[in-house]
Amino acid sequence: MTKLHKNRISVDIYGQSYKMIGSETSGHMRLVASMVDDKMREINSHNPSLDSAKLAVLTAVNSVHEYVKLKEQVELLEEEIKRLKG
Amino acid sequence: MTKLHKNRISVDIYGQSYKMIGSETSGHMRLVASMVDDKMREINSHNPSLDSAKLAVLTAVNSVHEYVKLKEQVELLEEEIKRLKG
Repeated sequence: MTKLHKNRISVDIYGQSYKMIGSETSGHMRLVASMVDDKMREINSHNPSLDSAKLAVLTAVNSVHEYVKLKEQVELLEEEIKRLKG
Repeated sequence: MTKLHKNRISVDIYGQSYKMIGSETSGHMRLVASMVDDKMREINSHNPSLDSAKLAVLTAVNSVHEYVKLKEQVELLEEEIKRLKG
């Protein structure tokens, strides 16, 4: 088995503290946490009546939507590389 | 102003109903909703004591993490295309 170094940090997202553990750098984990925090605050500003569970679900929906669009872009770029290498 | 056709659908995510409105196809919106639902169920299976708000926040964290990694991949692919086009 490979011994991986795990980073452990504590981050604040929307007023709650979360422990994050991962093989990514703490900088990457802090960036991700701040992106989630920003997105929750942005969605909340447009929908102030949402409870925090629904707000977090909509934040996840928004993030997965952007992921799927980016995945489509990756496929187009990979096709272009294949064509250029032709 | 451009008149955009908006699709309106109702989806179920982790036992709650959400109205989604967007210019994306209803197929895309249903795919995104089911990816969020799957991810919440997967995270819950490893952390059954989490409340649904924290579970949804961790789902958003997970999705944004994957988005950031994919964004790095897009940058590498774009550099490769630039290099290939010389």
